[in-house]
Amino acid sequence: MEKSTKIEKIRHSLSHLMSMAVQELYPQVGLGVGPSIENGFYQDYDLPEVITPEILPALEKRVKEIIKENIKFEQRDVDFDEAYKFYKRDPYKTEFIDDLKTAGEKKVSFYKSGWFDNLCAGPHVGSTKEINPDAFKLISIAGAYWRGDEKNKMLTRIYGVAFETEKELEHYLWQQEEAKKRDHRRLGKELGLFYFSDDVGPGLPLFTPKGEMLRHLMESFVRETQTRYGFQHVWTGHLVKEDLYKKSGHYDNYKEAMFPPMLDENVSFRLKPMNCPSHMTLYNEMGKHSYRELPMRFAEFATLYRYEKTGELSGLTRVRALTQDDCHTFCSEEQIESEFSLDLKVIQEVLTAYKFTDYKVRLSLKGKGGKYVEDDKKWAEAEAALRASLKKNKIDYYEAEGEAAFYGPKADFMAKDILGREWQLSTIQVDFIQPGRLNCSYVAEDGSEKTPVLLHRAVTGTTERFMGVIIEHYAGAFPVWLSPVQVKILNITDRNLKYSEKINEEFKKLGIRAELDDANETIGKKIRNAEIEKTPYILVVGDKEEKTGSIAVRERGKGDLGAMELSKFIEKIQKEIESKI
Amino acid sequence: MEKSTKIEKIRHSLSHLMSMAVQELYPQVGLGVGPSIENGFYQDYDLPEVITPEILPALEKRVKEIIKENIKFEQRDVDFDEAYKFYKRDPYKTEFIDDLKTAGEKKVSFYKSGWFDNLCAGPHVGSTKEINPDAFKLISIAGAYWRGDEKNKMLTRIYGVAFETEKELEHYLWQQEEAKKRDHRRLGKELGLFYFSDDVGPGLPLFTPKGEMLRHLMESFVRETQTRYGFQHVWTGHLVKEDLYKKSGHYDNYKEAMFPPMLDENVSFRLKPMNCPSHMTLYNEMGKHSYRELPMRFAEFATLYRYEKTGELSGLTRVRALTQDDCHTFCSEEQIESEFSLDLKVIQEVLTAYKFTDYKVRLSLKGKGGKYVEDDKKWAEAEAALRASLKKNKIDYYEAEGEAAFYGPKADFMAKDILGREWQLSTIQVDFIQPGRLNCSYVAEDGSEKTPVLLHRAVTGTTERFMGVIIEHYAGAFPVWLSPVQVKILNITDRNLKYSEKINEEFKKLGIRAELDDANETIGKKIRNAEIEKTPYILVVGDKEEKTGSIAVRERGKGDLGAMELSKFIEKIQKEIESKI
Repeated sequence: MEKSTKIEKIRHSLSHLMSMAVQELYPQVGLGVGPSIENGFYQDYDLPEVITPEILPALEKRVKEIIKENIKFEQRDVDFDEAYKFYKRDPYKTEFIDDLKTAGEKKVSFYKSGWFDNLCAGPHVGSTKEINPDAFKLISIAGAYWRGDEKNKMLTRIYGVAFETEKELEHYLWQQEEAKKRDHRRLGKELGLFYFSDDVGPGLPLFTPKGEMLRHLMESFVRETQTRYGFQHVWTGHLVKEDLYKKSGHYDNYKEAMFPPMLDENVSFRLKPMNCPSHMTLYNEMGKHSYRELPMRFAEFATLYRYEKTGELSGLTRVRALTQDDCHTFCSEEQIESEFSLDLKVIQEVLTAYKFTDYKVRLSLKGKGGKYVEDDKKWAEAEAALRASLKKNKIDYYEAEGEAAFYGPKADFMAKDILGREWQLSTIQVDFIQPGRLNCSYVAEDGSEKTPVLLHRAVTGTTERFMGVIIEHYAGAFPVWLSPVQVKILNITDRNLKYSEKINEEFKKLGIRAELDDANETIGKKIRNAEIEKTPYILVVGDKEEKTGSIAVRERGKGDLGAMELSKFIEKIQKEIESKI
Repeated sequence: MEKSTKIEKIRHSLSHLMSMAVQELYPQVGLGVGPSIENGFYQDYDLPEVITPEILPALEKRVKEIIKENIKFEQRDVDFDEAYKFYKRDPYKTEFIDDLKTAGEKKVSFYKSGWFDNLCAGPHVGSTKEINPDAFKLISIAGAYWRGDEKNKMLTRIYGVAFETEKELEHYLWQQEEAKKRDHRRLGKELGLFYFSDDVGPGLPLFTPKGEMLRHLMESFVRETQTRYGFQHVWTGHLVKEDLYKKSGHYDNYKEAMFPPMLDENVSFRLKPMNCPSHMTLYNEMGKHSYRELPMRFAEFATLYRYEKTGELSGLTRVRALTQDDCHTFCSEEQIESEFSLDLKVIQEVLTAYKFTDYKVRLSLKGKGGKYVEDDKKWAEAEAALRASLKKNKIDYYEAEGEAAFYGPKADFMAKDILGREWQLSTIQVDFIQPGRLNCSYVAEDGSEKTPVLLHRAVTGTTERFMGVIIEHYAGAFPVWLSPVQVKILNITDRNLKYSEKINEEFKKLGIRAELDDANETIGKKIRNAEIEKTPYILVVGDKEEKTGSIAVRERGKGDLGAMELSKFIEKIQKEIESKI
């Protein structure tokens, strides 16, 4: 959707040019799929031998030469007989032709570039002139089963990345390099934040004291913000009777993502994969509601469990235990716009505090299609309310027709991290359907019984995934307010231990998270250790500091700030914590 | 254990006297069991007709008369033949005699009191002179299956309560009456704190915004206290692979209390019924530990799930979802005493804040018996450490030989609530076994690898049960620091709405939990509503208050305090919150 057609053509054409270079080396090569993908392209090959990444520079060099030959890409339609004949020695292409025949096609499409003729639907660039030979790179080799089926033969997949300009390529490669350094799985271990254990199970992280403190700070911040904006918190636990999900419709639509049932003779329980049915049940149990009580805004930090495939799990960004900062607002139709606006404000404040200032909203609308609940008037009104609200709040957005949830339109926040990578974080979804299914109601001003609209909203998404994102965003160097340890106190000699302990106690009393490193090491070693832990402030305490009642301050990223009175330092750090800088 | 033998004899004898009164009315009555129980006694009868509680005053009167006859209780041993003959028309007593025969007894014991002769092992009072006729009461009738088996006949059970003095009886009856008024299940609904739903499942409470706020305040207070005492919080989620419990030994010893497994082809998961194996797994994943890192104190507010039988569930005091304020301290054997002492201090501070000042500790020791792990030296040292620590902290305790956990000695806090009812709340347990089973280790100062000792500790026990206890303890009138709504603002007329809203905002900014009741009701009605909600402070705002920039303050339990400057009131309430009075 967001890819330019031009760059897609370049990427797809590069996969053909790479195949030319490969076929020059291996004339009998079999050709699997070779699409353009995000940031680049790949092509699957059936090769007579195993190749290693050492081959890539030579291949790349050859592709560059081919580009410079200014070869034209020429499309033509071909009879099935001719196509089968052309590929009589390639079982993969033959299977593709079979598929097209089964699909009832009359002809098949070929693209010719120089001597290389290839079954392909296109589109491609007109000529290699359009490709910048310095804006692509072949980057890796992997195994890939033919048609993704492990019962089939394993083919060799070569990946490349490609852009329109050399600058874009360089930026991308820098981003990748930087992302590798910031990989939250590696940093999580180095900083001692979380672990996974085979004894507990895949995708189920365990958080150390430091990691739990980070979770706690993240959730407390969202809780405090939500409370300030008039949201109330509820608690609904971690499991419910399976029947509730049959009523809500989640059983039919979502069963695959749930953990297996807990079955006894009389009843079947499920771990909660989402909160909405529980929040609606609580709403109902609280008794009859009046329009005067609306909007009711139920927020909860509940850990949800989703049975993601083990192969798809990845550090904290894809887990099975996910603690959503989830909120459900029960409101009237007239309140959609103002409640949506309130949700936007909460999200803006939180994202800004985390320095995600470059974001836009993807507004997913009904469009023309059949999968949606029928009520064109409701849809039109809700979509208009969302647009109005986004405009009023001056939020950059684009519309995605036909991408709405089945129960109503939604707004997803796409935020760029410091490397420019885009993450889908917050979401607000309007729901016309579920409250009716679970018989939620309120008495309207005219005495009639009405069904409330439900707004689903998550700010950071889930604590786990967002922690993964911000570890990479900050490269593990969290701002002071978010650092599990804010201050590390290092005594130079044992003589200074008592004074160091006194300072430590003073910080504790003020709620500043300090740690004293009293190990019998050189001060240089202690400083290095504290730097590896990315502590925002390192305070060195020796005889001189003790005598003058001061501390020697080192600030992360800035180095030695020199001696400072303790009270001055406390003032400085408290101001920074307060303002979340 | 704690019952005096004398009162047990009185209670048991009263069940005989009651049987005399019953048999006078129903000469053919069959007699089931009739023991002394906590606070009283009961007796099961096979009666020819259904009786209702209306009969109790007459029965009671008759028992009083019998007591005044100064009847002696006389024991004698009887041959089986004679016993069978005596009870030839009573199938229940005949079954008892069968049991005694099967058990290999030579004779059976009878107790005679007046004309009433009864198969009974005793003991009894010497004569009814020892029974105070004004210190007992027959209180209720219930159905009870013969031998507790629902396939058997339902008998009629009559309950009585009995004490040595009339004063004790009166206190008990007052306590019962008061407890009924304070029943947390009723108050929980009235105050809108929590609900149970058939859609979610038995024993799985849902907490409303007010109930969640109460939970949050309770847990935040314990968290803050724990942090201040040097405990660190961790997060280990809600489920683990079943195999972990096979390693730890919980699978064999605790399987019945677990929710059914979540099974897929490759693996079986269980909801966590306790945290210890998870905390030990985290300890291990964090890498090799040195003696310098000990003690390590892992605390967690994890919701645990236990599959209590539905018939045993009761409000919040017996639930299936229980959030323990659980802590596990990994320490060396030498650190047991000081760590136990630290745990005691945390518990004392928390219980005192909740006004549980009347408590004693039951120190459960190994005693002489076979079920314990063999290592007499370790046991003796640990028991000595616990005793020393209890003495040093001046905590009243008594020893219970043979009542320890299989893995080590333990200390349970038995605390009296305001009604004098005793609750088992906090617990500290020493564990020599589990760390070894899960291969926890640390490198000692001499370089050798050692197994840490584990201290299990809970302060309030579980959030849910403790909430049930404190709702009854405070009769729902929580102290200011613990009240979900601390201040209710009531505007007299619409003219005063703006000023009321301003005050409300001011409270919010200060973190004082205020609510504005702007309903179109009379001020009298609004005050009554706020009183029903047991709000600590009610602020009435009318023209007079608005003009003088003041508020009219009503304090719960004290009534109208008159007009007060807002700043003065804020000072007062902040002081109360701070000091937790």
